[in-house]
Amino acid sequence: MSTISILSIGNELLKGNTVNTNLAFIAKEATSRGHKVVLAMEIQDVSGEICKALKYALSEAECVITTGGLGPTFDDMTLESISHCLGLESRVDERALDLVSSRLPHGAEMTEARKKMAYMPEGAEPIPNPAGTAPGMLLKHGTKIIMSFPGVPREMAAMIPGSLENLPKSNLSYYQESVFVLGLYESLFSPVVDRLMKYYSGKIYIKSHPRSSGGKSVLELEVSSYAKSEDEGRRLVADSLRSIREVAEQMGGRILSGQEIPRNWE
Amino acid sequence: MSTISILSIGNELLKGNTVNTNLAFIAKEATSRGHKVVLAMEIQDVSGEICKALKYALSEAECVITTGGLGPTFDDMTLESISHCLGLESRVDERALDLVSSRLPHGAEMTEARKKMAYMPEGAEPIPNPAGTAPGMLLKHGTKIIMSFPGVPREMAAMIPGSLENLPKSNLSYYQESVFVLGLYESLFSPVVDRLMKYYSGKIYIKSHPRSSGGKSVLELEVSSYAKSEDEGRRLVADSLRSIREVAEQMGGRILSGQEIPRNWE
Repeated sequence: MSTISILSIGNELLKGNTVNTNLAFIAKEATSRGHKVVLAMEIQDVSGEICKALKYALSEAECVITTGGLGPTFDDMTLESISHCLGLESRVDERALDLVSSRLPHGAEMTEARKKMAYMPEGAEPIPNPAGTAPGMLLKHGTKIIMSFPGVPREMAAMIPGSLENLPKSNLSYYQESVFVLGLYESLFSPVVDRLMKYYSGKIYIKSHPRSSGGKSVLELEVSSYAKSEDEGRRLVADSLRSIREVAEQMGGRILSGQEIPRNWE
Repeated sequence: MSTISILSIGNELLKGNTVNTNLAFIAKEATSRGHKVVLAMEIQDVSGEICKALKYALSEAECVITTGGLGPTFDDMTLESISHCLGLESRVDERALDLVSSRLPHGAEMTEARKKMAYMPEGAEPIPNPAGTAPGMLLKHGTKIIMSFPGVPREMAAMIPGSLENLPKSNLSYYQESVFVLGLYESLFSPVVDRLMKYYSGKIYIKSHPRSSGGKSVLELEVSSYAKSEDEGRRLVADSLRSIREVAEQMGGRILSGQEIPRNWE
């Protein structure tokens, strides 16, 4: 299992113009492969801020994944900031330049702005971008791995699944499943959650989420596990879900079945 | 103008189970009031992590806003972590206890789990929650302001607009507007962005976003300004948008008008 910090770079995230769906996408992909995202940050397009955040993120995790700031404009400065922050030379990577060239429209010139997308820290490897022009980047820095991807969701999504293979394969499998209960207060059920988690001594994690939909209040109880195998994870989660269902019904809750579960939470 | 850091607390954000819409909501509300969000973080439900992040966030901004971790379960630990982190006593606040009581269903008991929601750092003020049980919190700490809100979006949204009045009124107005251009490469337009921003010497900010919708590529050029008055902001933005439109058309781009602008970006 690798621990991961995710840095999302771009003022638009801090103005509320853009909802950070990239974070949820990467977090889900990494978690489903048995890795653990321990921290995420949204950062301004300011070189000093990117450097401070990078150092914090590196102190928290074995791998740092960044999105945003790889494009041709003045405020795209992720790779330059990483180079500067880690004391590495930033220079045109010929492989990256080929990748940029290969994505240019027929007959288009290699301008300075386009060449900018081929600058990488020394020792880095470009990651091909099948959905856009700016290549991503993979950098091994001591024992740490840093990977950078574009902020455009379509491009990021095309690159993440394959790139996560650069992390050591996790020795753990992640599994989660939820039950949804009607007529049960989170505050009354919370001692049960405590007891169950103690009973399973850290092998499972139970999180309760109060939800509402169409004026109806529903309590989601989500059970998750990082286990040695997918089978063991499924078994642990199924066992504790059975206990949760029993106790919830004893307390007067009604377990919702598949079709009864609302699709749109408020 | 106050600078703000936003901390979103909850494992669900780091597993990708939940998209952090709270961040975009708060950022938009704060920016529209002339404040500036300079950093955001998503943090695990772990007391030491909350404390580390809080210290980082306080070093970056005048105000820290947290969401999540105010409920009755074992992993709701935001206020206790803040107390411990700042060396403040955590004790039952009678006003908070009244707020919790007033939201309990008729005849319901004040259990330990429910009482937990009334613990606040010494010197804090509870913020009423009109849409749920757990009160929010306002704490003045030296020259800094810390405010905490529930993670349930409906509850957070009901509390944020009024609570932002606790910040000193901003002396700046924020204004932004975008044009959408068809047939223009971001990499070709980026030198124009540089020139225009220099011409307006820091009074406006231009951000370009390559967008696509239904296979069509559109370049969004967003111009924003923090100005002394809304009128001045509108005028600055309108002026630079006029220049952008002119140059974009000279370069062969076509400016999209209202109805032509796609609603769903990919």
